[in-house]
Amino acid sequence: MLYFIGLGLYPKHLTLEAIDALRRLDKAYIDTYTSIIPGFDKSIIENLVPGEVVEASRSMLEGESITRIVEEARDKNVGIITPGDPFIATTHDAIRIEALKKKIPVKTIHGITIYSLAASATGLQAYRFGKTVTLVYPEAFKPISTIQAIHDNLDRGLHTLLLLDLRLEENRVMTIPEAVEILLDLDERGILGETIAVGAARLGTPGQTIVADRLHSLGDYDYPPPPHSIIVVAKPHPVELEALHYLAGLPYKLYKRYERSRGYP
Amino acid sequence: MLYFIGLGLYPKHLTLEAIDALRRLDKAYIDTYTSIIPGFDKSIIENLVPGEVVEASRSMLEGESITRIVEEARDKNVGIITPGDPFIATTHDAIRIEALKKKIPVKTIHGITIYSLAASATGLQAYRFGKTVTLVYPEAFKPISTIQAIHDNLDRGLHTLLLLDLRLEENRVMTIPEAVEILLDLDERGILGETIAVGAARLGTPGQTIVADRLHSLGDYDYPPPPHSIIVVAKPHPVELEALHYLAGLPYKLYKRYERSRGYP
Repeated sequence: MLYFIGLGLYPKHLTLEAIDALRRLDKAYIDTYTSIIPGFDKSIIENLVPGEVVEASRSMLEGESITRIVEEARDKNVGIITPGDPFIATTHDAIRIEALKKKIPVKTIHGITIYSLAASATGLQAYRFGKTVTLVYPEAFKPISTIQAIHDNLDRGLHTLLLLDLRLEENRVMTIPEAVEILLDLDERGILGETIAVGAARLGTPGQTIVADRLHSLGDYDYPPPPHSIIVVAKPHPVELEALHYLAGLPYKLYKRYERSRGYP
Repeated sequence: MLYFIGLGLYPKHLTLEAIDALRRLDKAYIDTYTSIIPGFDKSIIENLVPGEVVEASRSMLEGESITRIVEEARDKNVGIITPGDPFIATTHDAIRIEALKKKIPVKTIHGITIYSLAASATGLQAYRFGKTVTLVYPEAFKPISTIQAIHDNLDRGLHTLLLLDLRLEENRVMTIPEAVEILLDLDERGILGETIAVGAARLGTPGQTIVADRLHSLGDYDYPPPPHSIIVVAKPHPVELEALHYLAGLPYKLYKRYERSRGYP
């Protein structure tokens, strides 16, 4: 059996189902490159897994290595252990398909993910989110399609969850202040700076920091270390507006100005 | 302290964080009306909570009762226990705001939710989902805006997670076959029937059933009892197409036809 096991966003997000699965593994590969879990230590896994525990780099879980891992799962319980939920990022899609094609049984143990917390932890309403995008460092190319997706969501009255570039192998992890600078630089319409946005650091963990203000001001706050993300907020619904003030410290002046206009100034 | 505690989609989704919080409660209100948790029994909560456990109806957790519960949390640890994640549905937003306004400390314990599993359990990619909508029974009014949201997402190449009406007090819970009928009836453009869709029953639980086919055929399959939901699939990406075939049984003919056209027939 090939298990995909999501750990959630911090160690106490471990589910009873994940603990059961970890206890069955003959071999565990920990994905150490797609995100950061604050407070995570390899020993948490080692204490549960009876078999070998390997800290896996990208090259061990992607490309040609896929076939080898799938073959291992033919007569052993092999687990791929990931931050968040195993399949919210597309990283491990290929290995799941490969296993299914070879008729190796696959079991997914879901985990708590930023994808749902962007709504539930900030007071924004899940059904008012549009397409989610990742903002990458503008190097080889400028991430214009990311800006277009934000604009398109705003035009339709929808919020955008913006995941920030995270390249652990290169020791580069995008922070909220860096992302604000990139967004303002690429925003040819010039509307994003004044738009309300939420800066969320370490969401779902005991040290989570959630800040709401105009996007151009988000870089001025202090945040704990990454993972960081940003939500660009469409015209807030009155209940969302209250949540942004009481839960995320949206400044009183902004709160009142939007409230007077029923959230639609 | 006022706790909001998400149980996830079946009892083994309970997190270590949720167990810790349940053990601290002087009083627990179980939300019994927003969704169904297969395999759930009140005794699971009673075995963890040292204080009183109340099965709460809508009238106990909404409207005027809010103030009373918030006041209870002033000098006791009170918990509101919900299926999934506490704030993916908007049901409990008002009580959270009321507590924050009165400076009662609030702690949210997040849970696994259909909102992220719609992508991660079906092989569809999370960043290709647009706005999520709920399909209600077409009685007092026809849910035209739901159809418009699906069309709008399709026009943009985005999938739609469709949550189905669930009125436990009236003993009416919408199933996939009922939803298909309603959708085909309201679809004035006449495009939804031929569109690929996924029927998902009891997602995230050991008895989950995931079926991919043209929407008009989804009603012909057998599903376990609710909760049910549907995902209307925009033109599938080649990796998604493979997942729909190997994970959700998209019929071979359809799979091959879409594959030949690189997912864009």
